[in-house]
Amino acid sequence: MRILLVNVNTSEAVTEALGSQARAVARPGTEIEALTPRFGPESVEGNFESHLSAVAVMDRVATYEHPYDAVVQAGFGEHGKEGLQELCSVPVVDITEAAAHVAVMIGDRYSVVTSLRRTVPQIEARLAQAGLDSRCASIRASGLGVLELEADRDAAVRTVAAQARAAVEEDGAETVVLGCGGMAGLDEAVREACGVPVVDGVAAAVALAESLVGLGLTTSKISTFAAPRPKTVTHWPLSTALGL
Amino acid sequence: MRILLVNVNTSEAVTEALGSQARAVARPGTEIEALTPRFGPESVEGNFESHLSAVAVMDRVATYEHPYDAVVQAGFGEHGKEGLQELCSVPVVDITEAAAHVAVMIGDRYSVVTSLRRTVPQIEARLAQAGLDSRCASIRASGLGVLELEADRDAAVRTVAAQARAAVEEDGAETVVLGCGGMAGLDEAVREACGVPVVDGVAAAVALAESLVGLGLTTSKISTFAAPRPKTVTHWPLSTALGL
Amino acid sequence: MRILLVNVNTSEAVTEALGSQARAVARPGTEIEALTPRFGPESVEGNFESHLSAVAVMDRVATYEHPYDAVVQAGFGEHGKEGLQELCSVPVVDITEAAAHVAVMIGDRYSVVTSLRRTVPQIEARLAQAGLDSRCASIRASGLGVLELEADRDAAVRTVAAQARAAVEEDGAETVVLGCGGMAGLDEAVREACGVPVVDGVAAAVALAESLVGLGLTTSKISTFAAPRPKTVTHWPLSTALGL
Amino acid sequence: MRILLVNVNTSEAVTEALGSQARAVARPGTEIEALTPRFGPESVEGNFESHLSAVAVMDRVATYEHPYDAVVQAGFGEHGKEGLQELCSVPVVDITEAAAHVAVMIGDRYSVVTSLRRTVPQIEARLAQAGLDSRCASIRASGLGVLELEADRDAAVRTVAAQARAAVEEDGAETVVLGCGGMAGLDEAVREACGVPVVDGVAAAVALAESLVGLGLTTSKISTFAAPRPKTVTHWPLSTALGL
Amino acid sequence: MRILLVNVNTSEAVTEALGSQARAVARPGTEIEALTPRFGPESVEGNFESHLSAVAVMDRVATYEHPYDAVVQAGFGEHGKEGLQELCSVPVVDITEAAAHVAVMIGDRYSVVTSLRRTVPQIEARLAQAGLDSRCASIRASGLGVLELEADRDAAVRTVAAQARAAVEEDGAETVVLGCGGMAGLDEAVREACGVPVVDGVAAAVALAESLVGLGLTTSKISTFAAPRPKTVTHWPLSTALGL
Amino acid sequence: MRILLVNVNTSEAVTEALGSQARAVARPGTEIEALTPRFGPESVEGNFESHLSAVAVMDRVATYEHPYDAVVQAGFGEHGKEGLQELCSVPVVDITEAAAHVAVMIGDRYSVVTSLRRTVPQIEARLAQAGLDSRCASIRASGLGVLELEADRDAAVRTVAAQARAAVEEDGAETVVLGCGGMAGLDEAVREACGVPVVDGVAAAVALAESLVGLGLTTSKISTFAAPRPKTVTHWPLSTALGL
Repeated sequence: MRILLVNVNTSEAVTEALGSQARAVARPGTEIEALTPRFGPESVEGNFESHLSAVAVMDRVATYEHPYDAVVQAGFGEHGKEGLQELCSVPVVDITEAAAHVAVMIGDRYSVVTSLRRTVPQIEARLAQAGLDSRCASIRASGLGVLELEADRDAAVRTVAAQARAAVEEDGAETVVLGCGGMAGLDEAVREACGVPVVDGVAAAVALAESLVGLGLTTSKISTFAAPRPKTVTHWPLSTALGL
Repeated sequence: MRILLVNVNTSEAVTEALGSQARAVARPGTEIEALTPRFGPESVEGNFESHLSAVAVMDRVATYEHPYDAVVQAGFGEHGKEGLQELCSVPVVDITEAAAHVAVMIGDRYSVVTSLRRTVPQIEARLAQAGLDSRCASIRASGLGVLELEADRDAAVRTVAAQARAAVEEDGAETVVLGCGGMAGLDEAVREACGVPVVDGVAAAVALAESLVGLGLTTSKISTFAAPRPKTVTHWPLSTALGL
Repeated sequence: MRILLVNVNTSEAVTEALGSQARAVARPGTEIEALTPRFGPESVEGNFESHLSAVAVMDRVATYEHPYDAVVQAGFGEHGKEGLQELCSVPVVDITEAAAHVAVMIGDRYSVVTSLRRTVPQIEARLAQAGLDSRCASIRASGLGVLELEADRDAAVRTVAAQARAAVEEDGAETVVLGCGGMAGLDEAVREACGVPVVDGVAAAVALAESLVGLGLTTSKISTFAAPRPKTVTHWPLSTALGL
Repeated sequence: MRILLVNVNTSEAVTEALGSQARAVARPGTEIEALTPRFGPESVEGNFESHLSAVAVMDRVATYEHPYDAVVQAGFGEHGKEGLQELCSVPVVDITEAAAHVAVMIGDRYSVVTSLRRTVPQIEARLAQAGLDSRCASIRASGLGVLELEADRDAAVRTVAAQARAAVEEDGAETVVLGCGGMAGLDEAVREACGVPVVDGVAAAVALAESLVGLGLTTSKISTFAAPRPKTVTHWPLSTALGL
Repeated sequence: MRILLVNVNTSEAVTEALGSQARAVARPGTEIEALTPRFGPESVEGNFESHLSAVAVMDRVATYEHPYDAVVQAGFGEHGKEGLQELCSVPVVDITEAAAHVAVMIGDRYSVVTSLRRTVPQIEARLAQAGLDSRCASIRASGLGVLELEADRDAAVRTVAAQARAAVEEDGAETVVLGCGGMAGLDEAVREACGVPVVDGVAAAVALAESLVGLGLTTSKISTFAAPRPKTVTHWPLSTALGL
Repeated sequence: MRILLVNVNTSEAVTEALGSQARAVARPGTEIEALTPRFGPESVEGNFESHLSAVAVMDRVATYEHPYDAVVQAGFGEHGKEGLQELCSVPVVDITEAAAHVAVMIGDRYSVVTSLRRTVPQIEARLAQAGLDSRCASIRASGLGVLELEADRDAAVRTVAAQARAAVEEDGAETVVLGCGGMAGLDEAVREACGVPVVDGVAAAVALAESLVGLGLTTSKISTFAAPRPKTVTHWPLSTALGL
C-alpha cells in the first residue's frame, strides 16, 4: 500500500526526517510518500500557523496526482484533519490522535511533552475533540521551539527527557507521548530517561493507517465527512493559482 | 470606534447584508467596515471550506490597511478565531461564541438552528472549545444550505421556525440561536413563531465587541494568543502572492 | 437607559463605591441607580449570608418604585440571580457570570482571585451552573475578608496581585478575574503586577447589561424564569412587613 | 435522638403530613420534630420562592430553642442546605440528595418525577452541585403543582405513575425518585405501577440522618461550612424582627 | 437483621477485625456475619487480585446457607459489587461507595487515603462508575501495602495521617476517607491528626445497609441487576467444585 | 508473531468462529491461537458472568505454556483486561476498546449495537473507563441473547441491522460497532443495511495488536499494570486446582 505522509511545515529537511522515520516502522510492502506543503510557515507553533498549514496540507494532498491508500497528517496538535477527511476517500490519520490511541492501550494515563507552552491549549482542544483527553495526565512544554528541537538533538533529549520524568513522577503518567513532529527519533533516549513506554506519533500513525487499510475500512461519508458540495471556490487549489 | 466585520465566504451580497444588519444594531459612533475574503468558497458548509475560509479571513484582516478597534468573524461555527487573535492586538469576537454568551444570560438552556446536518459536529466542537456547551440543549439542522437560506426567505423562515419550535417543545430550549450567517434578519419572524427570545450572532457579536472596546480590554498576549514568532512564511499573505 | 445596580451587603459605603465604578464605565445616556438591601449582613462571605442577601436583594428590587431597563447583581459568587430573573421582565446580569463571559472572550483560561477560601466552592458552583467553568484555571483565595479588602487598599493590592501572579505562573491563567465586589477599582494595579488583562465584574456586568438592552433582548419567560405563580406569600416583601 | 424535619412552605397541613411520614420510617428512639417556617410561600415552585424559603428555613432552625441531633430539609430541589450546614453543628440532610444517594445504591440509573417543568433546571443544578447527576437518567415533570398534588391524591398517583413508567420504559431508569415533598406517601402506588423501586426523599433523609448520627459524624467545619464570621446582620433572625 | 460482611482477602484475622469493627457501629438487633473467601489472595492490591477476589466473594455469598438481609463487600476499590447485586435479592453495599456517600453529606470535597499508588486508578474508576467522583479532591497513596498497614499500627497511623493532612492542606479536602480495609480502626487517630471528619468505609457501609433494609428497599431487578439467565456455568460454585 | 485470542465463554464453537474471523484479517506471518476458558458460563450476559469469565480468561492465559506476542480478549464489554495487563508482559487488547479506537478514526460519532439491554451499563462503564465514551452516540440492544445471535444468523442480521439503521437515523451515528462477540461475521450484511462503516471488534483488536507489536511497544509496568506483588494466592491457577 502507499501512504501519503504530509509534513505541516515547508522544511524539506523535516519532510525527509519524517519519511525516514515512517519507513523505519512501515511493514514490508508499505510505500511512504513524504510530501512538503508548497506554501506556509517553516515551522508550526500556534494557531495562525496551524490554520495556514492546514490549508497548505489540504492543497498538497488535493494536487497529488497518483493513487494512495491512506494519508497521515504529520503535525502534532495541528488543525485540518477533518478537512482532509472530506477531501479524501481513504483513511486519514492524525499523529496527535494516533499517539493518544496507542498510549491509552498500553498504560493507564499518558502525558504529552511538546515544544512551546503556547501550543498547549491547541493540543488540549484536539485531544478533547477526538475524545481522547480523559486519560491525559498533563501536557508539558519543553520550552524549545520546533526548529531548536531539530537543531540541537542533545539539548532536545535533555529537555524533553526532563519533562518526561516530571510527568511520570509528578503527574502520574505511565506512558509519554512525544508531542511535536520535531521530536521524531527521540523516543529511545527519552524512554531510557523516564522508564516508561514512549510513543512517537509518526510511527503510531503509520501503524494505525496500515491497520485501517488492512481492515478495509474507510472514512464514513454519510454526513460530517461527505465530500464538499459542488460550488465555486475561487483560487483553489491555491498552489495552482499561485503557479507553484 | 471602527469594527471590522469579516464575512467568511466570497459573496459580496452576503457581506452587504451582514454589514446592514450590523449597522442596524451598532451604537451611534460605531463604524462597521464589512469585508469580503479575496479567495475561498462562495458559502461555507463543512470542514474543508471552513479551514480555507479561516485562512482567507486572516488574509483579509492581515492586508487591511486602516486602523480598527475590534474584529467580528461573521461565520457560524467556523474555524480560525484563535488565529485572528494572534494576528490582532484588538478584541476578536466570533459570532458563534457571541450568540452563546448572550443566550445563556437570558435563558436557561438554548438551542442552535443551523443549515445542514453535516455542520453540526463542527458547531458542537466550537461551543465545547469555547466552554459554552453545557447549557446547549440541541443543535438542529434545517436541511437548507447557506445559499438556499438566502435565496428563498419565506422557505427559510418556515423551515427555521419549525426547528425552533421543536427545540422549545422537545429539547427544552428557552432561547434559540440562529446558527448560520445566512439567517441574518430572520430573528423577528422566528421569535414570533417559537415564543422565546431569538439571538442573532452578528448582532450579538457587534454588541459584545463594543462592550470589550468600551471596557478597554484586549486579548491576553501572554501565551496562547501572543503574536506569531518571527519566521519565514512563504507566499503570505496569500492574496498578495496571488496578485489580488 | 437606567440600570439598577444592587449591592449584596448593607454597607452604604460599598454601594457608593460600586455606583462610582459603574458610572465610570457606563456609556453616555446610561443612568446607574445603586441600591442597598434593607436588611442582611454587612459583608457576604459564605452560604448563610449569601442566601440571606439573595432575599434582601430580591426584596430591594421588588420594592423599587421607578422604571428600569436592567438589573446588575453586584456580589461575586452569590446566590439569587435566578430568583431576580423570575421577578423582573428586564435583563438581569450577575457580576460573576459577566466577568467570566468577558474573560473567556479575551484569553484562553482565566483564574479568579477572591476573598476567603471558604467562598471558593460557592464560586465554583455558580460558574458550573452558568456553564462557564471549563475554562476556569483556578479560584484562588487572598485570605482577606471583604471588609479587610476595603479597609486597607495597599494590603489588598499586594495580596491580590500576589495571587494573580501565581495564577498566571502556576495555573496557566491568561486572564484574571477580580472575584469580590470589594476589589472594585483594583484592576489597574493588579494588571500591572501580573501582566495579563484583569476583569472587574461590575464593569463587565454594566457593559453586558447595556448590550442586552441595546439588542432588545429580555429574559426568556417560557418556563424556568416565568413570573412566580399567584399564591400566598406571607410577610412579603419582608422590608414592608418589617416597616422599613 | 431528635431530628428536626423542616418543611419549606408555610402549610401546617404539609408539615403534619411530612412529620407522619418521617415517624413511620424512623427507628425506635428517634423523635421527629416537624417545623413550619414562620414566613414565605405556601408552596415552593421556582427560584424566587425557593430562595425565600431557604431563608425562612434557616430562620426557623436558628430560632428553635431545644437540642437536636440532626436536621432534615424537606423540600425537593430547594436552595439553602449549605447555609444550614454553616448554622448547625449537627448533620444536615437534604431530601433531594438523600433520595439520590439511596437510588444509586439500589439501581443503575434513576429518574426523578417532579411537579412542574419550571423546577427541573433547579433540581438538575442541585444534583450536579451534590455530584449526584451522572447516574440520573431524566427529570420528568408531572405538570401538577405542589398544591394540586396534595389536593387530589388519585390524580396525583395517576399522573406521577404515568411519568414513572415512561422513565423506566423510555429513559432506562431502574429506580424512581419522588421529586416533590407533596408526593410523600405515593411510593407504594407508584412502585406498583412502574415495577421498579421507588424512593421517597423524606424517608431516605430520615434514615441517612439516623445513620450519620449513629456513626458519630458531623459536618466538617474546617472551611466551607464553618460557622459564619462574627459581623452585623441587621434584622436577623427575621421572624424575631417581624415579631412572629 | 443479619448482614453478611464479606472480606475480599483470605486472611481470617482481617475478617475478624472487620467483623469487630462492624459490630461496634451496628445498631442493637443487627447481627454481623463476617465471611472469608474460600480461595484467592491474602491481600488485594491490584486488578488481577481484585478480579479474583470478586469471584471469590461471589462464591462465598452464593454458598452461604442461611438467610440474610443485606451484604457488605468489605474491600476498598475492588471489583464485583455489580455481580453480587445480580446474585442477591437483598441490598448490597460496597465500602468504597458507602464511604463516598457519607463523605459528601458532611463536607464539600473529600480525599481518599489508600495503600499503594498502583491501586489509585482502580479506585478512581469505581468512584466514577458510581457517579461519586466529582467531589473527590484527590486519592493519595500511603505507600504501605495492606499487610504492612495491619502489621504495624503505629507506622500506619503516622503515614496515613501525614497523607490526610496533606489532602486537607494541599488538595482542599474537608473530609477524609480511609481507603483500605486494612485501615479499619484508624479513624480516631487520623481525625485527631488532620482536624476533619474521617470516614471509615466498613462503618459507613453497615450503617447504610441498615438504612436500606429499614426503608424496605431492595436492588432493582428490572434490567442491569436481574438474576443471571438460566444457562450452563461449568464448575460453579468454584469452591464446591474445588471440594472446599 | 503469535497472538492469543481468548474467548470469554466456554463454547468451543464460538472459539472456533472467533479464530476463523481473526485469521481472515491477520497479516501474513501472524499466527492466531484461539483459546477457550476451562470453566465459566457458556455465554456472558451480565456482571456475574462477566466477572467469572474475567477470572477464567486470566486463568487460561496464565496456564498457557508457549510463547506469544500479544493477547486479545474477545468479549465485548467484559471485565478483566486490566488484570491481564498485570499478568502479561506483552500488549493486551480488548475488543471493546479496539472497536471504539477504530470507530473514532473513521467517523464522527459511533453507536454500538449489542445483545441484551442488561449489558448496556457494563459497556458504558468500559468505554468510560477507557476514555472512549465522548464520541459514543448510543448503545442499542438488539434484544437477542448471545446464543440466539449465533443460532439464527438471518434473524441476527435483521435485528442488528434494524438497530444499526436506527442508530444512524435517530442518534446521528456515522459508524456502527458490533457490540457482541456473537456478531462476528455480520459486518458486511449490516454495512449494506445501514450505509455506514461497520467495525467488528475482533478484527479491530487483531489489527491493533499487530500494530502494537510492530511498534515494539509493551504495557507500561511502572505502576498500575506492574506484575502482582509476590504473595500467597490460594488455589491459583483455579484450573490447576480443579484438576482441569
